[in-house]
Amino acid sequence: MSETKIILTEKEMPRAWYNIQADLPNLPSPPLNPATRKPISPEDLAPIFPLSLIEQEVSLERWVEIPEEVLKIYRLWRPSPLCRAHRLEKALDTPAKIYYKYEGVSPAGSHKLNTAVPQAYYNKKEGIKRIATETGAGQWGVALSQACNFFGMECTVYMVKVSYQQKPYRRSLMQVYGSEVIASPSTLTSSGRKILKDNPESPGSLGVAISEAVEDAAGRDDTNYSLGSVLNHVLLHQTIIGLEAKKQFAKIDTYPDVVIACCGGGSNFGGIAFPFAHDKIVQGTKVRLLAVEPTACPTLTRGHFGYDYGDVAGLTPLLHMFTLGSEFMPPGIHAGGLRYHGESPLVSRLVHDGFAEAVAYEQTAVFESGVLFARCEGIVPAPESSHAIHAAVKEALDAREAGESRTILFNLSGHGLLDLPSYDTYLEGNLKDQPLHEESLKKSLEQLPKL
Amino acid sequence: MSETKIILTEKEMPRAWYNIQADLPNLPSPPLNPATRKPISPEDLAPIFPLSLIEQEVSLERWVEIPEEVLKIYRLWRPSPLCRAHRLEKALDTPAKIYYKYEGVSPAGSHKLNTAVPQAYYNKKEGIKRIATETGAGQWGVALSQACNFFGMECTVYMVKVSYQQKPYRRSLMQVYGSEVIASPSTLTSSGRKILKDNPESPGSLGVAISEAVEDAAGRDDTNYSLGSVLNHVLLHQTIIGLEAKKQFAKIDTYPDVVIACCGGGSNFGGIAFPFAHDKIVQGTKVRLLAVEPTACPTLTRGHFGYDYGDVAGLTPLLHMFTLGSEFMPPGIHAGGLRYHGESPLVSRLVHDGFAEAVAYEQTAVFESGVLFARCEGIVPAPESSHAIHAAVKEALDAREAGESRTILFNLSGHGLLDLPSYDTYLEGNLKDQPLHEESLKKSLEQLPKL
Repeated sequence: MSETKIILTEKEMPRAWYNIQADLPNLPSPPLNPATRKPISPEDLAPIFPLSLIEQEVSLERWVEIPEEVLKIYRLWRPSPLCRAHRLEKALDTPAKIYYKYEGVSPAGSHKLNTAVPQAYYNKKEGIKRIATETGAGQWGVALSQACNFFGMECTVYMVKVSYQQKPYRRSLMQVYGSEVIASPSTLTSSGRKILKDNPESPGSLGVAISEAVEDAAGRDDTNYSLGSVLNHVLLHQTIIGLEAKKQFAKIDTYPDVVIACCGGGSNFGGIAFPFAHDKIVQGTKVRLLAVEPTACPTLTRGHFGYDYGDVAGLTPLLHMFTLGSEFMPPGIHAGGLRYHGESPLVSRLVHDGFAEAVAYEQTAVFESGVLFARCEGIVPAPESSHAIHAAVKEALDAREAGESRTILFNLSGHGLLDLPSYDTYLEGNLKDQPLHEESLKKSLEQLPKL
Repeated sequence: MSETKIILTEKEMPRAWYNIQADLPNLPSPPLNPATRKPISPEDLAPIFPLSLIEQEVSLERWVEIPEEVLKIYRLWRPSPLCRAHRLEKALDTPAKIYYKYEGVSPAGSHKLNTAVPQAYYNKKEGIKRIATETGAGQWGVALSQACNFFGMECTVYMVKVSYQQKPYRRSLMQVYGSEVIASPSTLTSSGRKILKDNPESPGSLGVAISEAVEDAAGRDDTNYSLGSVLNHVLLHQTIIGLEAKKQFAKIDTYPDVVIACCGGGSNFGGIAFPFAHDKIVQGTKVRLLAVEPTACPTLTRGHFGYDYGDVAGLTPLLHMFTLGSEFMPPGIHAGGLRYHGESPLVSRLVHDGFAEAVAYEQTAVFESGVLFARCEGIVPAPESSHAIHAAVKEALDAREAGESRTILFNLSGHGLLDLPSYDTYLEGNLKDQPLHEESLKKSLEQLPKL
């Protein structure tokens, strides 16, 4: 029998991140200053980001060296295993080979720590003492809390209110690492107060929480802002996932036919897919790249491709991306990390130009596949990651139908041990699909900035 | 810099468990039938255990081969990493080298899966369709639920009521794997009803829950009973931890000066310590073996060495061990898995004969070390495991005091991601030490069976 886990040694861990901007046939159109609507300059970003990350944001170098201090912390959990889902294959009676890269081995429980650590590192190096951020499901907030703690920095997290209520364990975990956690919308910022005035019962959204965190950071000299997804440098850091996966496949002389990841802001998808996209763009390798999103928030499958704000208050630069409109308020699905109106400009470009595909699923089907995976492989997946599992299951069943062997890779971005109340809801038969709010989407798209 | 994680490949994973009964200078006195008070026969155990496990219970063979079906499932997470706690060493400013074996990588989140899998396997092989068990903190219940699910068996778990209430996420997790979970004491068994009649507010204890599960299993032909600790075969299965650790130390040409583990029923301590005890007994190797328990339930440090029941109702065989008396009711500390009145006869013998030491700590000091560890190494430990961390911290500070290099190994038996409410209590300053109930202990020891 072949191995269950394909392991790299610490010495085999990649020492540079892959920058897809070096290889993209069409680069995303540049971010615009929200006031002047002209391309932003590094000076525009300097009040909230350190210079090294601003440089990475626009770099066209193919490889960016990972600092030794970051590698040291990566070694706490990396390289992460590439696992063969033997028992899932058997349950599906499929000729397909299913592999998953497991990022839940990080002490934060998800891939988010891959970028939290370098972000904290570069901020620390440039004299910053405190970071403000937002979090949806809490995965990002936990990761940044850990990273700030590793470097002895303070951390304030604006947590989307619906997740703050549904996921108290993630809040606790951030507090274990010493962070201050605030339910968003809050009364601490003018962005939060505005939302609460219009709708005191607002469940919040990533867009609102981003406005609050940016406002916090812009108002204090010792504080910077940090984002867990969407931006180029975030996706850059996450490419360590796909780079390791390629090395692991090389060890067993295999290459995937399809690479699957759930997609909220895009860092998880970009992280595993970009190193394979390199092969596809540069060498013409045949590999399908599949981004999976929730029907309730279908940015790539139903969004508009154009400029929009990254947040609700219009404080961020205008990004060129797929968007549902920054005022779109998705329903409170359990995959809180996928409730974002926008999408990484790099992932948007990749999908728009036909290098990657996107698909959207309803949450009950997603939970069904999540529970099947847990019972086969043991690991309880995060509801976000279950979107990728569901797509992998569909691919495997499709391969059975077609009588084809097929090698499927998906990224298991995190475990769901802090999402167990959502499993209770599912197992009790009380989980409902959350169809797209068509009216809300229509209204939101009409509000897109006119350029 | 030296590696952070010492890794074994799947091929390097041990293929046999180590049976310390082959090497102990003094074997424990035999278990007695509770009715006749004569040594039990295999027939006495057959109604609730499969033959293969009864054989392992009394085997004097040094090595017991691990079945291929069990190895296959072990490979989902094993071999587990041996990690160097570089950052903790730095925080303590100690010349000591601190290593921990991390069993929280199992999908059940603890070492308990190491024995749950073979127990389910042997039961299945002998035609059993359903297993009844008890659980304290929920670690064992989760593990057996997973194991039964892997082999397509039903599982009913009697969960100590105080944990059922404090740890709802562990209950949810057992249900994800398809188990039925019942708060103990329950009205479903006569043992449970008796306790509830005397004290309707009883928080429960492992002793009571064992009575309930044994009664359940004895009453149904298709059902066996399964225990997560204490018995010889359970500790046998756990020796894979120490066997792997020895191989990992050999890879870096190192050997520990002290091996530390928390100790409830003894399977975690036995699992890591027995393979080192082998070296100590057979080769005279100098290595200290240290068992750590809570002051609130100090079985090894304050218990009586003699025969006692394993449960409250007196349904189990009389075991020769350290015991606080089966009627001892420890306070509801957060380390629910260490609230057991008795102790593995093998571990008891090892401590009694001077091959191992024991020490007891209060829970606030234990949580302090747990949070320190989480902030240094990232992983939030289970409150049980934090007892071992606290002892390791004390060893490391002691080494600093003495100006000695010292190699410390402890078993990080599980993560605490499902124990976060106890961290909330600690961080809010509301965690109290739970001193030993001296009166309760005195009374309980007076009730010990007279032989």
